[in-house]
Amino acid sequence: MLHYLGQWGRAVALATLAFSVHPALATDVAAQGRYQQGLTVANGLFGEEFVSRFMGALGEVSPDLARFTIEYGYGDIVSRPGLGLCERELVTVAALTTLGAYPPLLKTHINGALQAGCKPEAVVETILQMSVYAGFPASISAMTHAKAVFVERGILNVTK
Amino acid sequence: MLHYLGQWGRAVALATLAFSVHPALATDVAAQGRYQQGLTVANGLFGEEFVSRFMGALGEVSPDLARFTIEYGYGDIVSRPGLGLCERELVTVAALTTLGAYPPLLKTHINGALQAGCKPEAVVETILQMSVYAGFPASISAMTHAKAVFVERGILNVTK
Amino acid sequence: MLHYLGQWGRAVALATLAFSVHPALATDVAAQGRYQQGLTVANGLFGEEFVSRFMGALGEVSPDLARFTIEYGYGDIVSRPGLGLCERELVTVAALTTLGAYPPLLKTHINGALQAGCKPEAVVETILQMSVYAGFPASISAMTHAKAVFVERGILNVTK
Amino acid sequence: MLHYLGQWGRAVALATLAFSVHPALATDVAAQGRYQQGLTVANGLFGEEFVSRFMGALGEVSPDLARFTIEYGYGDIVSRPGLGLCERELVTVAALTTLGAYPPLLKTHINGALQAGCKPEAVVETILQMSVYAGFPASISAMTHAKAVFVERGILNVTK
Amino acid sequence: MLHYLGQWGRAVALATLAFSVHPALATDVAAQGRYQQGLTVANGLFGEEFVSRFMGALGEVSPDLARFTIEYGYGDIVSRPGLGLCERELVTVAALTTLGAYPPLLKTHINGALQAGCKPEAVVETILQMSVYAGFPASISAMTHAKAVFVERGILNVTK
Amino acid sequence: MLHYLGQWGRAVALATLAFSVHPALATDVAAQGRYQQGLTVANGLFGEEFVSRFMGALGEVSPDLARFTIEYGYGDIVSRPGLGLCERELVTVAALTTLGAYPPLLKTHINGALQAGCKPEAVVETILQMSVYAGFPASISAMTHAKAVFVERGILNVTK
Repeated sequence: MLHYLGQWGRAVALATLAFSVHPALATDVAAQGRYQQGLTVANGLFGEEFVSRFMGALGEVSPDLARFTIEYGYGDIVSRPGLGLCERELVTVAALTTLGAYPPLLKTHINGALQAGCKPEAVVETILQMSVYAGFPASISAMTHAKAVFVERGILNVTK
Repeated sequence: MLHYLGQWGRAVALATLAFSVHPALATDVAAQGRYQQGLTVANGLFGEEFVSRFMGALGEVSPDLARFTIEYGYGDIVSRPGLGLCERELVTVAALTTLGAYPPLLKTHINGALQAGCKPEAVVETILQMSVYAGFPASISAMTHAKAVFVERGILNVTK
Repeated sequence: MLHYLGQWGRAVALATLAFSVHPALATDVAAQGRYQQGLTVANGLFGEEFVSRFMGALGEVSPDLARFTIEYGYGDIVSRPGLGLCERELVTVAALTTLGAYPPLLKTHINGALQAGCKPEAVVETILQMSVYAGFPASISAMTHAKAVFVERGILNVTK
Repeated sequence: MLHYLGQWGRAVALATLAFSVHPALATDVAAQGRYQQGLTVANGLFGEEFVSRFMGALGEVSPDLARFTIEYGYGDIVSRPGLGLCERELVTVAALTTLGAYPPLLKTHINGALQAGCKPEAVVETILQMSVYAGFPASISAMTHAKAVFVERGILNVTK
Repeated sequence: MLHYLGQWGRAVALATLAFSVHPALATDVAAQGRYQQGLTVANGLFGEEFVSRFMGALGEVSPDLARFTIEYGYGDIVSRPGLGLCERELVTVAALTTLGAYPPLLKTHINGALQAGCKPEAVVETILQMSVYAGFPASISAMTHAKAVFVERGILNVTK
Repeated sequence: MLHYLGQWGRAVALATLAFSVHPALATDVAAQGRYQQGLTVANGLFGEEFVSRFMGALGEVSPDLARFTIEYGYGDIVSRPGLGLCERELVTVAALTTLGAYPPLLKTHINGALQAGCKPEAVVETILQMSVYAGFPASISAMTHAKAVFVERGILNVTK
């Protein structure tokens, strides 16, 4: 529990409780709408257990960043029409390959891409194409993280 | 013409001449295969006139960089199966939005995405999603470049 | 007007109209709460005219990105307690100096910092300190943009 | 000890010995002035033991980089008036969150911010605000490092 | 072995087998020319065992990225005249220090620089100079990786 | 003249006046030593007129950043032994190509590389090699800036 934050627990409560909110609390209702919408999308992509663990760990230091990630990233953005869920995860893999510095989040989104129905080839091709735009180090580094995900999911047979 | 490069003109020759190469010159034949393949893809995405102008301008200082861009970027990579051409341009738009520093190339690939059959919404959604991963400045800056492309192509009516 | 977006005008409407929303439309009410809150903060930092022009220009291509910038950036984040408004603008100047690729937004936030009550020295010191963390090119480039802002505001006398 | 550097030990000597330098050695005297000034500031922010360990480890490969870090980073820059020490550490946290690739240095400066009198909320808010400017991955990654620092300092109670 | 890639083993085959290719297969012959040329350069810089291990590990997920790294990076680029091999490795060390996010590749190229005949001082000076252009965090981080390489090669005596 | 900085003119004075400083002012003497040393190196690389104009323009907003650039960048770093002046400019060109966002400074250092005795081929090869490490957009963008410098120096004949 954070000593310095009185509002602790709000994100966890939002995430785990069924809620019935008075209509007067319009802001909270809408926020919960965005949050619930985002949580549904995130759970679908990464699995409830992963999302719950992520939210719990991040929530111990900044429940609001955890909440904003769901509300804005998944409620406002990833939930939008105009681009398929697989494509959304592929452009995210492209961005994280280009940034280079966030392997755990890259692995999360490689998993998300596969869960969204992208074929492994599409993930590999996206990372491979980044060699042209972000350079070979970005591409090589991301590809080793893709390999780790493929091994975890049993879709890459590593021969010793 | 470059004073310091004796090999000048190779790229231009490759790009503009029909060629019939002796089989012994295997390396050149294969390079021409990759180059011709890449050129076909690049011409399809950006138009012959644009590609020719780009190759000419870059070729005045580094014909080899111009040639490698076509051979590697389009002959080896963008020509590959496993990811559709629209998707390839979208992940490129994602990368260039994340990098931020290359507006002319970003505009080129927004054009490429549209030429590859992506809907304008898909381009806008890709750039919008980058607000989550690369930040709002990257997203806002790229969106203004997308707007410029849409105006040029007459698919955005700017009301004064 | 955008050909490809049916929802055009929502951001403009939110920004310019008084609204009386039915309580059942809880999501919209809350969004308007965040939007109105963000708009107030942004107007205070950058001036109504600037914000309106920014929203108009960006809104022609992506009214949703314009709206999210206000809702998330200023409604959710900059409005928070725990860090003064001048400090918020200084850490933003630090981020934009480090990113390097977005001079117009950097200039906007240098203006914002001054409007938030930061002294010019604090802006200069923030940019100067970035020479240590992001390198001299980032610092030198940002400082010339600060100079342009200071000239525009009449707080730097440029001797010819 | 470095085989390839004859000047080894200069930084360590500067750091650990009282010195009385002949006035004719003006350059060394001034360098020592900047170095001593920087060392005092760095020791105050990070603790003598940490600084000594950092200087020792880096000094084994590049005593000059260790020395320049103190002389320029802390003697010339962080020592300046015009921005409070807490604010200097916050803009540094913003820069390191934006860069993303240097977690150990980020943690060092989160510690420095707290030592300079910043409240934990100010650190959290700075990192949270980076979600707008550098993206959520930068913000999420930095926040987990902030959490680790808070745990080490006993200001975050992690429930198992 | 990859489930999703039918072309598996091509890179490994290219790397390990003597080949006698029919002249009609011009593309493959030329590719092997570039590959063999690149492999020779890479083996010379990093050692056959390292390159083989790198190619094997990367080849399990993307044999084509492994092959392109050799063909383009070392066959097309590093093999070129106009810049000495030591200088090529130094500008690579500069680039990887600036990028910051790829320590294993940075260490590989610090080894490559030394193998190409650069003195350790030249590596240290290159990394030190990056403090000016990419900032002290980039420089400090890279220097600790240089130290690790120097220790492994026995050219830095670490005193406990 | 800056309204907000009382110390204005120090950098200009340091740059343009012969000085005879009392030995008691050890810090200033040493700083002038570093400054004079740096100024000599910078003038040699970029020309007195360019450096004077740069210092004047930057000095109007931050004379201290102008001074630190000379003192640290050129007095402390570029003046060091262990790496030739041409090599120092090449690794700087590599860094600025990788960063991407600072074309004016990149052009300055392409000029500096040529002035330091690097052949144009070495500059072109350095930028070309960055296609591998920082991506083709970085390389293409930097090459067009190199072309502009070559044209200005009359070493590239642009055929219309």
